[in-house]
Amino acid sequence: MAKITKQSEDFSKWYTDTILNADLADYGPVKGTMVVKPYGFSLWSNVKKALNTMIEDSGHENAYFPLFIPKSFFEKEAKHVEGFAKECAVVTHSKLIAENDGLSVDPDSKLEEEIIVRPTSETIIWSMFKKWITSYRDLPVMINQWANVVRWEMRTRLFLRTSEFLWQEGHTAHATKEEAMEETLKIVEIYKSLFEDHLAIPTLIGKKSDSEKFAGAEETFSIETMMQDKKALQAGTSHYLGTNFGNAFDVTFQSKDNKEQPVYATSWGVSTRVIGALIMVHGDDKGLKIPPKVAPQQVIIVPINPKNEDEKEFNSFINQVANALNQKNIRCKVDSSDNTPGFKFNFWELRGAPIRVEIGLQEYKDQKLTVCRRDTGEKTSIEHNDIDGIQDILDDIQNSMYSSAASFLKENTIELDSYKDLQEKLSEDNYFIKAYWDGSEDSEMKVKEDTKATIRCILEDIDDTKAKCIVSGGPAKHLVIFAKAY
Amino acid sequence: MAKITKQSEDFSKWYTDTILNADLADYGPVKGTMVVKPYGFSLWSNVKKALNTMIEDSGHENAYFPLFIPKSFFEKEAKHVEGFAKECAVVTHSKLIAENDGLSVDPDSKLEEEIIVRPTSETIIWSMFKKWITSYRDLPVMINQWANVVRWEMRTRLFLRTSEFLWQEGHTAHATKEEAMEETLKIVEIYKSLFEDHLAIPTLIGKKSDSEKFAGAEETFSIETMMQDKKALQAGTSHYLGTNFGNAFDVTFQSKDNKEQPVYATSWGVSTRVIGALIMVHGDDKGLKIPPKVAPQQVIIVPINPKNEDEKEFNSFINQVANALNQKNIRCKVDSSDNTPGFKFNFWELRGAPIRVEIGLQEYKDQKLTVCRRDTGEKTSIEHNDIDGIQDILDDIQNSMYSSAASFLKENTIELDSYKDLQEKLSEDNYFIKAYWDGSEDSEMKVKEDTKATIRCILEDIDDTKAKCIVSGGPAKHLVIFAKAY
Repeated sequence: MAKITKQSEDFSKWYTDTILNADLADYGPVKGTMVVKPYGFSLWSNVKKALNTMIEDSGHENAYFPLFIPKSFFEKEAKHVEGFAKECAVVTHSKLIAENDGLSVDPDSKLEEEIIVRPTSETIIWSMFKKWITSYRDLPVMINQWANVVRWEMRTRLFLRTSEFLWQEGHTAHATKEEAMEETLKIVEIYKSLFEDHLAIPTLIGKKSDSEKFAGAEETFSIETMMQDKKALQAGTSHYLGTNFGNAFDVTFQSKDNKEQPVYATSWGVSTRVIGALIMVHGDDKGLKIPPKVAPQQVIIVPINPKNEDEKEFNSFINQVANALNQKNIRCKVDSSDNTPGFKFNFWELRGAPIRVEIGLQEYKDQKLTVCRRDTGEKTSIEHNDIDGIQDILDDIQNSMYSSAASFLKENTIELDSYKDLQEKLSEDNYFIKAYWDGSEDSEMKVKEDTKATIRCILEDIDDTKAKCIVSGGPAKHLVIFAKAY
Repeated sequence: MAKITKQSEDFSKWYTDTILNADLADYGPVKGTMVVKPYGFSLWSNVKKALNTMIEDSGHENAYFPLFIPKSFFEKEAKHVEGFAKECAVVTHSKLIAENDGLSVDPDSKLEEEIIVRPTSETIIWSMFKKWITSYRDLPVMINQWANVVRWEMRTRLFLRTSEFLWQEGHTAHATKEEAMEETLKIVEIYKSLFEDHLAIPTLIGKKSDSEKFAGAEETFSIETMMQDKKALQAGTSHYLGTNFGNAFDVTFQSKDNKEQPVYATSWGVSTRVIGALIMVHGDDKGLKIPPKVAPQQVIIVPINPKNEDEKEFNSFINQVANALNQKNIRCKVDSSDNTPGFKFNFWELRGAPIRVEIGLQEYKDQKLTVCRRDTGEKTSIEHNDIDGIQDILDDIQNSMYSSAASFLKENTIELDSYKDLQEKLSEDNYFIKAYWDGSEDSEMKVKEDTKATIRCILEDIDDTKAKCIVSGGPAKHLVIFAKAY
């Protein structure tokens, strides 16, 4: 295994080293693209499963809409187009021809209308809603899709910024504003549960400022998380879209009393970016630390019997332990490769398996297991058939990973009321800075220019007339978080 | 509900009517594309789950490779390019700009090298295998991905022929030819099990002739199925690729004794096309018939209590039955919409739910259920808590749907040895015709020109020198199936 750069040396290089060495992902041949390798995909599948269950249980249905969007659809919603036109893959032809020992694009195959590879699916989905929604009986429509989307990016960061990424995008249509807003906020709670209960990542939740909200949204609610370099990562967003897309695609419905009414929309998404968050919130200089609930392997058994003593009985004991764990739905794997135990320890620490069980001849004789926690390094000895004991340790790892991350977030979030202090603090290090803001774009932009920090989210609206904006000193409208962000 | 064309009137129109009216899918805005609606997606998800379990249990790992393939990769394997160059989506630009009240492609964003939207992923995957495979320790590599692919098609038939479709594609790399061939055939068995055991579709399995095999394969094994119009549908394929892609991407490995060796490949896929097969094998003039194992809803409960007598107790009885079924993992739904029972009967027959349970006041008083089978229309009365009885009926439906389809295939497969008979039969109606073939492209093309039938698969190789080709009268090499195909 190659050496991983230390976090303290270069956090960004530590991040990439960890991903490549833990076999989560690799760079694809087209600039900006990523290959998700089996270990990374297994992790993503567990995240997906947890989130999909919550999405379905709250009344949403999965469906699939086409990858290809006619260019003209983008012209229909002005703000939406502004947000995406500069970074989209455009399909212009449908044929290659052999020429001079190579392949050329066949000029005769030029499309009448160019096609955009979806960067997000509001436009294509609302073009279908136009066909499907005519009466109050058709509402609400609550749809989700798991899909790949493309946003042209030349500065790749694996999982965080790739030109193609995997995500879920929810799209709903409602008869009233209130119902749409309720849906928007319900999704925020689902995302919060995904991050806190499954990924052990504490969250800060609030509205985005106008300059940071989704292109085409009335309101964007964001789930913000703190990485170990104290930068913010926006891990999920839920948008209240008002009637913007309904109007753009001329969707209305006939109410019970036969009136033509506008349709209200939401959309919301979480992407493979969460894998980036998971790595940067929990990892250490040894590599990944994966929360048990989403770990591809929760328990790795390393047999230590270099001279193959009592080989048959020893192996049968190992298999017995592994089977008992798997039967109780604990994801367990025996590393029976011919590498040394030391190599295996490092390998599975790098890959972030929550528990390593060491079984040597002594353990075999005593019918015990030596259990080693990835999060603390702590070793304990338990009875070989104490499956509940293993589950308790997994639960404890899950909880204490959350607690550590929550403490870290708390320690590095500071409240300030002087602009000089804000500048000073952000020139020393990264922080989440809680402060008052007057709601103006001028103040927002000044902070960005002076410190590179942006408003991550609006925590509260402020009525108190004594509260002053940290930038302008004028009356404050909101309590916000300023931070540098990915 | 709109009226569905009868199968006997126009099978093709019956097919499309059924899909649109049963809410399986709809046409997308870009020509050739399809929207998979929630009911259709739920069906596909059940198929996917059954197949994915078999794929993972046989040692394959899921991963994800990029959508975008550099044009130059296609130049590397000559046959592969021939097969796909004429029908691919080509991305040439990365930006749109506002112009004359609309959007134009920004000519300055022209890409240095054009990008192909994957029609299949052999080239991109083998470009990564080049990085990942160096030693015998790295083999075998056994990967699968669930993905969308694009093949330019202008004549859409929902599920059967769409420019974008969903599928799984497996790609494996092996140290020896024998191991790769074994893998190719293992997958054929997995697909056979998917079709026969889960989709209740009987299969014919064999090699493709050279003219019909996958572009870049040494051998293609195909799973052929018979629709109710007696045309063939190729429902899945497994390819032995030899060293074609290993050579094209210069992939070799160091053997145990330090020799540089070629790497052998397989690839294999099943797509949303199987939904088309399921519809056309089982459906009738009332609509879909879905085999219980993959049905989104296995049991639909229709409450019949028009005057709302004993409303509270009646509804509690309904819920009790539904909960008992769901707890035993029978997918059950109560249709409590305000439509009439007659409407509900038609609605769920159209959607192909295997069992309808009718509960009226009499059933409530007797604590019984009236169970109606979608496949036969047969009604029986069972005790309200006889969950095993419901499961037995579901199993029986699954089995008898398979038996009916198997009888239909048998009845419509005929053995012929005279070319005149073959022409006559195929001018009267569609059949699967079992006959000898001399292995020549001339004979194969003659049948195609005369009758539109093609060789679906090679059932057996022939040693018997007395066997004569049905076309040329020359010595036969293979026993094959001729049929018209989708």
